[in-house]
Amino acid sequence: MSIIVLGTMAYDAIETPFGKTNRIVGGSATYVAYAASNFVKPIKQLSIVGNDFSGEEMKDLESRGVELEGVEIVKDKKSFFWSGKYHMDMNSRDTLVTDLNVLLDFNPVVPASYQGSEFLMLGNVSPNLQLSVIEQLTTRPRLIVLDTMNYWMESALSDLEKVLKRVDVLMVNDSEARQLSGQFSLVKAAKEILKMGPKYLIIKKGEHGALLFHGDQVFSAPALPLEEVFDPTGAGDTFAGGFIGHLAHTRDLSFDNMKTAIIVGSALASFCVEKFGPTRLKEIRRGDIDARIRQFVDLVSFEIKLV
Amino acid sequence: MSIIVLGTMAYDAIETPFGKTNRIVGGSATYVAYAASNFVKPIKQLSIVGNDFSGEEMKDLESRGVELEGVEIVKDKKSFFWSGKYHMDMNSRDTLVTDLNVLLDFNPVVPASYQGSEFLMLGNVSPNLQLSVIEQLTTRPRLIVLDTMNYWMESALSDLEKVLKRVDVLMVNDSEARQLSGQFSLVKAAKEILKMGPKYLIIKKGEHGALLFHGDQVFSAPALPLEEVFDPTGAGDTFAGGFIGHLAHTRDLSFDNMKTAIIVGSALASFCVEKFGPTRLKEIRRGDIDARIRQFVDLVSFEIKLV
Repeated sequence: MSIIVLGTMAYDAIETPFGKTNRIVGGSATYVAYAASNFVKPIKQLSIVGNDFSGEEMKDLESRGVELEGVEIVKDKKSFFWSGKYHMDMNSRDTLVTDLNVLLDFNPVVPASYQGSEFLMLGNVSPNLQLSVIEQLTTRPRLIVLDTMNYWMESALSDLEKVLKRVDVLMVNDSEARQLSGQFSLVKAAKEILKMGPKYLIIKKGEHGALLFHGDQVFSAPALPLEEVFDPTGAGDTFAGGFIGHLAHTRDLSFDNMKTAIIVGSALASFCVEKFGPTRLKEIRRGDIDARIRQFVDLVSFEIKLV
Repeated sequence: MSIIVLGTMAYDAIETPFGKTNRIVGGSATYVAYAASNFVKPIKQLSIVGNDFSGEEMKDLESRGVELEGVEIVKDKKSFFWSGKYHMDMNSRDTLVTDLNVLLDFNPVVPASYQGSEFLMLGNVSPNLQLSVIEQLTTRPRLIVLDTMNYWMESALSDLEKVLKRVDVLMVNDSEARQLSGQFSLVKAAKEILKMGPKYLIIKKGEHGALLFHGDQVFSAPALPLEEVFDPTGAGDTFAGGFIGHLAHTRDLSFDNMKTAIIVGSALASFCVEKFGPTRLKEIRRGDIDARIRQFVDLVSFEIKLV
């Protein structure tokens, strides 16, 4: 079973209350790939990098079953670079630098070898690129998961609305759900958004976990209470990678299995924030992930013995 | 099995984005009593009211098994009055009026008939009053639950620290846990607070649910995603009443049963916010509560079938 992943492969420089790092590898597609490759291979990457993107990093990804045929390398430009500084609460951050570089030329072309994938993860890039990838696929994937952000709601809403009609699952955070729907109540927001196209909506609430909405059903997943969130960069993409990775591995698209996939995604994200960038994701093995998932089970399990 | 409840019985005038109400009955002890009396009788109230407190309200409470011998009625003063206005997000509010009135004279005297209660709920009043009640009891209750707030952390910290040494369970919200511990991470905050005396710490996170800490164990309870929070006044006290009510009813103080008690408290609180003040709490019956608890079970249950 394979997954096509559209997204950025980039460099980040990150400052948090706990420390500071120079250029380290980042980008939505990178995090998705590191997370999803724990469950399924190959991951078919659709991205763009510059002449500065590390060959070692490419090899590391390939060794994990990530195919890079769909990653365009632009010889005379640099990779997308982002730099940011997190505030004490880790929920808000200031962007210090955004150098789009190669991203200005990004026009993903789906290689012939990628056709026939049953799973498509549309990472957070411009809606017209997301739409272009959907339209290039000769067979519609069984499951299309969409990530997006407030920026596209403000600058490309009508394109985003077109994409929404074509996907199965939308992932956004709570403030984005409110913005997209114009509703403050997340329950009302979910009802509005589910009318826009997706059959499933995941609202990510950071340290407060996530909500899954489908029809009249709702599932509340906790986040693991952590002593320290060292660096939240990439946590949302890692969540997405664990989510779609589990679904692709099990090939079960029931609501019940979507719930499990959210727990798997949450477990992966809880590793991601422990060190800078994808460092921790590169260290963990399947046994670590299973142990973390058992912590989630313990965290929420209760028995009702009403007398 | 009986519960002694220390707290205010008061009048509130409330404005929310959904409406406005004139003087309606409120106060921490009122909400605790309405919630806990669903599970156990009698509730032995320790409070103070003025000459304006409704006799009908008193009768309503008595009909639910609430004993009022410990409620002092001050003939020449008015009851405590609070007026506030909630913002759109319902997590923040402005206090418009605080008329302490009889509260200035509050010096609770535990009636002889209250002695021997196995459960004590110390509602959010001055720590020296909470301490006074503990010291008046001839036999230490099996379980003492403490509610407090940031105001006392700022104005009466050393008294509060004395009370903390004498209680089993502390309930605070997330910002209060951070303030009391000086730690931003809630996990670290919990470790610090558990050193101050309580064996159990409940951190209430409003629409994001609650966390229970005990030794190295942690439990994450969701809040029910609601279409509308009509009026959050009293939700925390209602949660406390449901929590201690369930524990007093089952007489089981294990960690597992504390988890169930938090779900029961959350279910009661989810009713409280549906209408102004305690209106909804007066309407519900045991069947409504059990159905709501089943919604919580559905909300968080997931199966891990890792392949």
